[in-house]
Amino acid sequence: MTTDIITEEELNEIYTFAVQLGKDAGKLLLDAAQLRYAGSQAAALQVEEKDSAVDIVTKTDEDVEAFIKTSIEAKYPHHKFIGEETYSKGASRSYMISDTTPTWCVDPLDGTVNYTHLFPMFCVSIAFIVAGKPIIGIIYAPFLNQLFTSCRGRGAWLNETQQLPLMRNPIPPMPANAPSGCVFACEWGKDRKDRPDGNLYRKVESFMNMAAEMGGRGGKGGMVHGIRSLGSATMDLAYTAMGGVDIWWEGGCWEWDVAAGIAILQEAGGLVTTANPPEDPETAEIEEVRLGSRLYLAIRPAGPSQTESGREGQERTVREVWRRVRELDYERPGA
Amino acid sequence: MTTDIITEEELNEIYTFAVQLGKDAGKLLLDAAQLRYAGSQAAALQVEEKDSAVDIVTKTDEDVEAFIKTSIEAKYPHHKFIGEETYSKGASRSYMISDTTPTWCVDPLDGTVNYTHLFPMFCVSIAFIVAGKPIIGIIYAPFLNQLFTSCRGRGAWLNETQQLPLMRNPIPPMPANAPSGCVFACEWGKDRKDRPDGNLYRKVESFMNMAAEMGGRGGKGGMVHGIRSLGSATMDLAYTAMGGVDIWWEGGCWEWDVAAGIAILQEAGGLVTTANPPEDPETAEIEEVRLGSRLYLAIRPAGPSQTESGREGQERTVREVWRRVRELDYERPGA
Repeated sequence: MTTDIITEEELNEIYTFAVQLGKDAGKLLLDAAQLRYAGSQAAALQVEEKDSAVDIVTKTDEDVEAFIKTSIEAKYPHHKFIGEETYSKGASRSYMISDTTPTWCVDPLDGTVNYTHLFPMFCVSIAFIVAGKPIIGIIYAPFLNQLFTSCRGRGAWLNETQQLPLMRNPIPPMPANAPSGCVFACEWGKDRKDRPDGNLYRKVESFMNMAAEMGGRGGKGGMVHGIRSLGSATMDLAYTAMGGVDIWWEGGCWEWDVAAGIAILQEAGGLVTTANPPEDPETAEIEEVRLGSRLYLAIRPAGPSQTESGREGQERTVREVWRRVRELDYERPGA
Repeated sequence: MTTDIITEEELNEIYTFAVQLGKDAGKLLLDAAQLRYAGSQAAALQVEEKDSAVDIVTKTDEDVEAFIKTSIEAKYPHHKFIGEETYSKGASRSYMISDTTPTWCVDPLDGTVNYTHLFPMFCVSIAFIVAGKPIIGIIYAPFLNQLFTSCRGRGAWLNETQQLPLMRNPIPPMPANAPSGCVFACEWGKDRKDRPDGNLYRKVESFMNMAAEMGGRGGKGGMVHGIRSLGSATMDLAYTAMGGVDIWWEGGCWEWDVAAGIAILQEAGGLVTTANPPEDPETAEIEEVRLGSRLYLAIRPAGPSQTESGREGQERTVREVWRRVRELDYERPGA
């Protein structure tokens, strides 16, 4: 099945369904959170260790995924479903997005660490993928009451009323000295091994390059305007689509962490490519993001300046980031 | 004048006034932000460079401070007023909080970088200080519609209805292996000099120690649950009072960045002391925070465990943080 087979009318219907599903799932997350602080110790969340102390999974996570999966199967029995929990419990770790069957790719709870601590940056993330491309994205952060939605050709929206990016009259160009002047979002992640040149050290070296004064660090200093870490790849992408984040660079996510965010960001006019710098960052082609690559570099929507188009400004920024970051070591089978 | 001279009834009245002032000021911030994305380029914010490219000040900042100052002077002409903008333009850089006159300490816009980019973490911060101690705190983040308020003896609140910390039945103890299991908030700040052993390098070394696996980094690895950077000291403190952040460690803030947050955190049951480790972190007295010290370490409200009181757990956490962080070099005259 290809995109062509879904009519615009069907797409409208799927979009409406997905938005409501996101709202309902987010409400379940918030209700479960409120049970914890409203009340009884008995309602306290059951937290069990997964891959590491940082990667926690909650019963709520599983319950909300089951709710979303059941709802989709009832409405669209022929669509495929991929969720974080089903994946974790499955035998295969290979890339499972179908090129031929419309697929829902869902993270019932992104930012599980945040959720456990009641740090506000947690959300549900629902993407609808056709021919390998996410064309509907729904992100709902219920504690913040922020709903991000998009459908191909219909724009990207905050709370269904404010089109993204927020600043759009006009959409600002990328700063002339980017990454200087940019808000840079990055995450420390779960790989905390104290291994020379491991992911933790490569990440921090990259963060340092982006942060340090222009001309510092052997010419790699990027003097970004600010460095932000929210603990949620999904919220990082949503805020990049909004324009509040200019650059997001990350490795180690899975497709359910990013599929909805990529849909929203692309519909808003953003660019997404790979985190790892190619051999020649100055001239290499800027490849289209691969959903299952686990390596992502996102640039916010950008308008033209007097000397370049918005896309040219985004691509220039990509190359300036690549020049300052290290290659990260995250792989997956089948991608 | 000392605290005793303000009656409980007067304090109630001042608190009511301060809450409304925070709401009104936050609305001004949001209105100005919305002008930018709703519309005309003419309404675009005038941004001028201050100390560095990272330290921007906006016209909104000055307008909102003038509004707050005028409102306070009209209502309480005998109180003293200190705001970021008045300070920046004044001749003295010395500590100006009075021990004898009730003082309002105000940041009209904390998170100016965020505000400029429309990254949601910006807020107004209003503290009322008596005998050198902040006893009323108001923080309002209008984009997130999050209002944090406290008055000594009256509890700390989110949106006037949810008491802080949010998880309070019971309030969780500090994790047994803290900082492991903790959400750690920290900021990269404005000092980005590429200077060996300068603040940037000392901060990042400290962040690395907090992040790395337990036993790593020569025994300093803290394996915190997550590292968060919001770009607003005020929001960091508000979320620590809420319980969403367990530990906040920072140098370089000024008293208007932290006064309201300290009032709210202390009223919620949190602990605030100095960022810089004393000579013997394991046994040194845990000193009370000095408002003008520019060095802060905050621990969330904590309940008792089976083996220690909440305060004991907080103090144990302070010592574990001190063991892992470097001394920062921020000074001020007069503190």
